[in-house]
Amino acid sequence: MCELLGMSANVPTDIVFSFTGLMQRGGRTGPHRDGWGIAFYEGRGVRLFQDPAASADSEVARLVQRYPIKSELVIGHIRHANVGRICLANTHPFVRELWGRNWCFAHNGQLADFQPPAGFYRPVGDTDSERAFCDLLNRVRQAFPEPVEAQALLPILVAACNEYRARGVFNCLLGNGEWLFSFCSTKLAQITRRAPFGPARLKDAELTVDFQAETTPDDVVTVLATEPLTANETWIAHRPGEWTLWRLGECIARGEA
Amino acid sequence: MCELLGMSANVPTDIVFSFTGLMQRGGRTGPHRDGWGIAFYEGRGVRLFQDPAASADSEVARLVQRYPIKSELVIGHIRHANVGRICLANTHPFVRELWGRNWCFAHNGQLADFQPPAGFYRPVGDTDSERAFCDLLNRVRQAFPEPVEAQALLPILVAACNEYRARGVFNCLLGNGEWLFSFCSTKLAQITRRAPFGPARLKDAELTVDFQAETTPDDVVTVLATEPLTANETWIAHRPGEWTLWRLGECIARGEA
Repeated sequence: MCELLGMSANVPTDIVFSFTGLMQRGGRTGPHRDGWGIAFYEGRGVRLFQDPAASADSEVARLVQRYPIKSELVIGHIRHANVGRICLANTHPFVRELWGRNWCFAHNGQLADFQPPAGFYRPVGDTDSERAFCDLLNRVRQAFPEPVEAQALLPILVAACNEYRARGVFNCLLGNGEWLFSFCSTKLAQITRRAPFGPARLKDAELTVDFQAETTPDDVVTVLATEPLTANETWIAHRPGEWTLWRLGECIARGEA
Repeated sequence: MCELLGMSANVPTDIVFSFTGLMQRGGRTGPHRDGWGIAFYEGRGVRLFQDPAASADSEVARLVQRYPIKSELVIGHIRHANVGRICLANTHPFVRELWGRNWCFAHNGQLADFQPPAGFYRPVGDTDSERAFCDLLNRVRQAFPEPVEAQALLPILVAACNEYRARGVFNCLLGNGEWLFSFCSTKLAQITRRAPFGPARLKDAELTVDFQAETTPDDVVTVLATEPLTANETWIAHRPGEWTLWRLGECIARGEA
């Protein structure tokens, strides 16, 4: 199994605090030694940092922690390989261009006997996760060759995720720079931070951040993770089958499959 | 105008020496202040480091110089913007998946009134370069929905590049992890290093590397760049219209459009 991290915010926000906690699970407080990756949207562009090495030992991870990149939408992942070798091509998040936008995807879980029909998007590596991402985009593209709003996509996304989870475990995050979609098959939790901000203490590292000092009163920042990352805040657990859609830190749609 | 850097090698090779020279041109010895990027293939995966900031001042560039990533195929670029704003989405190299492989592209030059027909691949940013890359992939995909060898692609690649250069300047590098293709419209130079290796001295920084100490006798490493990067070696200049195809450091095809 793996760990997922997502962030949606209404101002460019530093994810270093949450990332630091997550990275500890890559070989120090958790068993996820098989690579990690994080994608930061910056306008329509996306920065992708990845390493097949354990995140707790990764030089690139140290750079990301030292170099605060601010973003309104982030998707991160640390991997405990079950399907697919340990190599860069099998490291989440995966990115593809659709409609002139960068779409980004990360998955926690595994799918049994999953061989979707070949389509336009094809996996580069050999994980079930990337196969699911390509299949998802092939479905979207087939239904909507031209861009549509996120709300119009939801029936396709939710139906696909629901099919995938019938084959195993499928917790996922999907974003395209405008919005962040999540699907919970077994575990996912959320927290939305807004004024009045308080201190937050990481569960996985000795680190506390006073968000009051780092934010303005209008900031809204939502973090999604497979497991709560902080010890002194109340995270909301998602139910199996629950999906959410976020834009600028706010939930704009949610439901259950 | 911009600067291009390409490498094809028969063993995973450290590009830091050439990269260090190139980076100086991003605001120190050259005027290319508008971002830089470098893509390293690692198996079928690709690592992409990019920054819209001037390379000579870039924190991410310092990481790349400190952290020797070895690769058999590299494409790098530093940008002097002429078409398109300075932002991450407009920063080369550009990457797209085709046939389950990561294709990577960088361009030096500019194209006038270039609005290719909309196809499957669409630009995320607003550069003429990314439009050309998408058009190139759309042509390849239309001709060959299923994978073919590089040699079968050459007529399409060369014809497209020749069309593009009729609209301005089109020096480019294109790779897919297996091979590296170049097209020279106005300037491109190559050097192939093999035993007996000697020292090389960068033109743009006070740095000399003794390749003898860094290599084995079987290593073959070709570097392509818009301008020669070293002062004490003989680079071969490409003629306008000349194209080349490289695999594992060796030229496997070349010709003139």
